[in-house]
Amino acid sequence: MRLKVKVLNIDSGGKPIVFLNNKDADKLNITASERVTIKAKKRLTAIVNTSTTIRRGYLGVTEEVKKILSLKQNSQVDVDISPFPKSLQFIRNKLSGKKLLYPEIREIVQDLVDGNLSENEISAFVTALHIDKLDLDEATSLSRSMVETGKTLNIGKKIIVDKHSIGGVPGDKTTLLVVPIIASEGFTIPKTSSRAITSAAGTADRAEILMPVEFTTHKMLKILKKSNGCIVWGGAIELAPADDLFVKTEFSLHIDPLLLPSIMSKKKAVGATHLVVDIPTGRGAKMKTSGEADLLARDIIELGSRLRIHTHCVLTYGEQPIGNTVGPALEAREALEVLMNQKHIPDLIDKACNIAGSMFELLGKKNGYSLAKKILESGKAEQKMRKIIKAQGGNSSILPEDIPIGKFSLPIHSEKPGQVLWMENKIIVDIGRAAGAPKDKGAGIIFNKKIGDSVEKGELLFTVYAEQSYKIDRVKYVLSTQALLGIGKKSDMLIHTITESPVVERTFVLDR
Amino acid sequence: MRLKVKVLNIDSGGKPIVFLNNKDADKLNITASERVTIKAKKRLTAIVNTSTTIRRGYLGVTEEVKKILSLKQNSQVDVDISPFPKSLQFIRNKLSGKKLLYPEIREIVQDLVDGNLSENEISAFVTALHIDKLDLDEATSLSRSMVETGKTLNIGKKIIVDKHSIGGVPGDKTTLLVVPIIASEGFTIPKTSSRAITSAAGTADRAEILMPVEFTTHKMLKILKKSNGCIVWGGAIELAPADDLFVKTEFSLHIDPLLLPSIMSKKKAVGATHLVVDIPTGRGAKMKTSGEADLLARDIIELGSRLRIHTHCVLTYGEQPIGNTVGPALEAREALEVLMNQKHIPDLIDKACNIAGSMFELLGKKNGYSLAKKILESGKAEQKMRKIIKAQGGNSSILPEDIPIGKFSLPIHSEKPGQVLWMENKIIVDIGRAAGAPKDKGAGIIFNKKIGDSVEKGELLFTVYAEQSYKIDRVKYVLSTQALLGIGKKSDMLIHTITESPVVERTFVLDR
Repeated sequence: MRLKVKVLNIDSGGKPIVFLNNKDADKLNITASERVTIKAKKRLTAIVNTSTTIRRGYLGVTEEVKKILSLKQNSQVDVDISPFPKSLQFIRNKLSGKKLLYPEIREIVQDLVDGNLSENEISAFVTALHIDKLDLDEATSLSRSMVETGKTLNIGKKIIVDKHSIGGVPGDKTTLLVVPIIASEGFTIPKTSSRAITSAAGTADRAEILMPVEFTTHKMLKILKKSNGCIVWGGAIELAPADDLFVKTEFSLHIDPLLLPSIMSKKKAVGATHLVVDIPTGRGAKMKTSGEADLLARDIIELGSRLRIHTHCVLTYGEQPIGNTVGPALEAREALEVLMNQKHIPDLIDKACNIAGSMFELLGKKNGYSLAKKILESGKAEQKMRKIIKAQGGNSSILPEDIPIGKFSLPIHSEKPGQVLWMENKIIVDIGRAAGAPKDKGAGIIFNKKIGDSVEKGELLFTVYAEQSYKIDRVKYVLSTQALLGIGKKSDMLIHTITESPVVERTFVLDR
Repeated sequence: MRLKVKVLNIDSGGKPIVFLNNKDADKLNITASERVTIKAKKRLTAIVNTSTTIRRGYLGVTEEVKKILSLKQNSQVDVDISPFPKSLQFIRNKLSGKKLLYPEIREIVQDLVDGNLSENEISAFVTALHIDKLDLDEATSLSRSMVETGKTLNIGKKIIVDKHSIGGVPGDKTTLLVVPIIASEGFTIPKTSSRAITSAAGTADRAEILMPVEFTTHKMLKILKKSNGCIVWGGAIELAPADDLFVKTEFSLHIDPLLLPSIMSKKKAVGATHLVVDIPTGRGAKMKTSGEADLLARDIIELGSRLRIHTHCVLTYGEQPIGNTVGPALEAREALEVLMNQKHIPDLIDKACNIAGSMFELLGKKNGYSLAKKILESGKAEQKMRKIIKAQGGNSSILPEDIPIGKFSLPIHSEKPGQVLWMENKIIVDIGRAAGAPKDKGAGIIFNKKIGDSVEKGELLFTVYAEQSYKIDRVKYVLSTQALLGIGKKSDMLIHTITESPVVERTFVLDR
C-alpha cells in the first residue's frame, strides 16, 4: 500500500513505531502491535499503532522512523504487512515452558536490540524468565547474545580483571578503592559502572565527582593505555545494549530475572578474564541469607566458567551502609580521604582489601588481603587513583575539601540512650533520595553511629545534607513516618508489631 | 509543575498517554512508563512517555487526554508525579507466585479498564496467569470483577438462558439454529457473539448477513421484548470491557489464560441463569482429547455454580468444519436453508439439537433432543428466526438465494480415488482468510466431501469463493504449500514425515 508520510514530531523511545488509520490497517489486514515493512530508499520493520486521527492514505512516523529512513513530510512510501518475527515464536515457546536454545535466544536479543519487539512481547518474555526461571544454559546463551549484539572492547592484553557488586547496600564506594589498588599492581582493570536507578548513588555517580566518566570505547582504550585502570559510565559505551532494554521492563515490574546475564555480559564485553563479584548479604540487602547468597555465587562462578571468565565471589556484610557516608559527593570525599590515609574507615577498608585481595589470589598471588592493605597504606593506591583521574580528564590534585556538599543540613540526635541495634537500608536510600541524591550531587547523609555503637541521649546520630531547603522538609516528612535506625538495649526482643490491615512494602533493588 | 499543553493529534488506543521532555521528567523524578496526575478542570492519571521532541515546559497530549480534560493548545495544566497504582503491587505479588484475593483482582481490573496500567504491566499479569495458572477462586474473582467494571443487562426475568462455544471449529453456525429453537419455546436467550479474531467467521459476522447486530443495551432489551431471543455483537454493548483489553494482549502473545473468566463474565453480565457450553474436541480443535475437555468442563461447571449460573457442557466432535460451508455469507445461507428444511445437513442439525436439547433438560424438560428436533422440523424455529431478524431490523422474508456470494471461484478436484481421511481446521481457516473472509462477507469455502466420504478421481472436493480475483491467487498459493484434507485408503498408516530442521507451527484459536 502506497502511503504519504506524516511526520508526527514525537519520538518513541528508540523503537520504530508508525501510526496507520484504522481503515488502512484493516485493508492491510493488520491489527495494532503487529508489524509493517516500510520501503523507502531503505527498508524498515516498524510496530503499528492504529489511529483515527491519522487520515486515510497517510503513515504517521515518529522521529526514529523519520531518521532511519530519511523521510520528509508528504514523501511517498510503500507499506506492507511484515512477516511475524521468528523470535516471537521462540518467546511463545518460553511461555509454554520450553527451554530455549542459543540460536533462539540470539534471535530474540537481536530483535530486541533492533526494536522489533513490542512492549507486550518483551514484558511477557521477562515475566516468563522470572516465573519459570532460566537455567544456566539459557543464562549463558543470553550473556553471549547480549555481548554479540553490542560493542566490545579489544584491549589486547592476556589478563584483564574486573570487579562487580550485585548491589543493594547504600554508601558502597568500594570500587573507588579497589580499582586503583589492583591497577597499581600493573593489572588492567577496565571498570564500567552504572548510575543509580533505585539507589541514592551509583558508582558512576560517585566517580563523576572526581572526574568525567562518559567516554566512547575508543577514548576508553586510550585512558587504559595511560593508567591501566579506569572507572567510566557503562551507559555511554554501548556494551550489551540489550541489557538497558531489559532493565526498563524489569524496573517497571520490579523483577530481575536477567541479573546474571546482565552482569556477565558486561564483563565479557570488556574482555574480562578474571572477575571478583561482591554479594552483599543480610536483612537489608538483595540476598537475605548466606545460604541464598552461596547458591547465587555458585551460579555466577559456573556461568563465568562457561564464558571463560575465572570468577571468585565474596559474600560481604550488607545490613548497613559501607563507611559513614551516602550520596555522590559525600561518598567520593570519603573514598578520597581513605585513599589519602586521612581517615580510617574500618569496614570500607576491610571490604576493599577483601575484594582486591581475592582478585590478587585469583591471579595467583599469595596473601592477597595484606598485599591490598599495603598498597592502600603506602599511598600507591592514591597515586594510581590520581593517574586515573588525570587520564579521565579530572583534576588530579583534587582534595577532599574541594568537593562541595549541600549547604542545607539536618542533624538528628538520639532521643534515648542505648545501642544502635539495626539500620534500614531501604529507609536510608529513601532519605538520601528525598534529600536530592543522586541528581543533586551534594545531597546525602553522614553517619556518626552505626550498628553496635553505644549512644548517649542527645548524641548526634547522623546528619542529612541537601542542596535545596525544601528537600530538607521532604526528609523531615519521611523521618516522621519511618525510622532509619533503631536504638535500644541488646536484650530488647520486639522487632515490630503488625496491626490489622498491614501495609506491606517490598524492597526492590535494581542497581547491579 | 506547570506545563503548557501541546496537542499531538494522535490517539493512543484508549489509554491516556502524555509526552514529557526528558529534562522535565527528570525534574519530576519520573521515568518512562511511570504515571503523572494532570490537574485541569478535572484530574486524570496518565502514563508518561519521555521525549526529546517535546519542548521543555510542554506536555504533549494524545486525543484521549485532550478529550477527557477538554484541553486546548497552549492551555496550562498542573502535572505531578502520581502515586503508584495499588494494583501494580498486586500484579507484582502474582509475579512472585502469590494467590490474589477478590479485592486485589477487582483493583487490577478497575485500573485496567480505567487505562491506568501500561502494556508492560498488563502483559506481565496475563503471562503470570498463563504460566502460574489461575485457580478457581481467582477465576471467580476475575469473572465478578469483569462484570462489575462493565455494563449489565437487566432483563427482569427469572430464567435467562444462554449458550456458548469455546470455538476452534470452522463453519460453526450452530448458534443461528440454537437461539431460535430455544426462543420458540418461550425462553429468553440474549445471545451476544463475537466477530472473528483468528477465524474465518465469528457468529456476529454470520448473523450480520441476515440482520444488523450492533445495538446499545437499551435497544437490545427492546429487541428481547419483541422476540425473546437475539443474536447481537457483544463488542457494541460494553459488557465486560476488561475482556476486550485482556484479549488484545492474549492475542499478541498467543496465550489465553482468561478463557474461563472471559466466557463466564459475559454470561453473568447478561444475567444468564442457565448456560450450555459447547466444547469442540479433537485433533484440530482447541481441546485435543476428551480427557482434556472433560477437565475444562468441570472447571466451567464449578465456576458457573460459584457465579450462580446452572451450567451444562457438551463435548462435540471438532475435527472438521460443521456443515458444508465456511465464510460469513455461505454459513448464513446454510443455516437459513436448514431452518427452512430446504437442506438436510446431518452434523449441523445433530449438534444444534444436542445443544438446544441439553438446555431444555437443564431447564427441567424431558427428551430435550427430540423436542429440539421437532421444533426445527416443524418450521417453528424458522418462524422465530424471522421474528428475531425483524426485531433486529433485518429483512424478515430473506431467502437463501438473496445472500450474495463472491463471484470468483476455484473448484478443487481430487487427484486420486479413495476416502477423505482427515481435514485440517487450521488450513481451512487459512484458506478462508486468504480468500478474504471474514472482512469480505462473500468469501469462503463450500465442501462437497468430508471425513469418511468416498471420492472418485476427478470428483469435486470443495470450491473456494472470493470477492476479488487476486485473493483466488493467494488461495492457490496457500493450497500449493499445504493440504486442507487428505485422501487415501483406510489402511494408510503414514501421517507425515518430519525431515531435518522441521518447521513447527502451533495453532492458536482466540475466538471464544
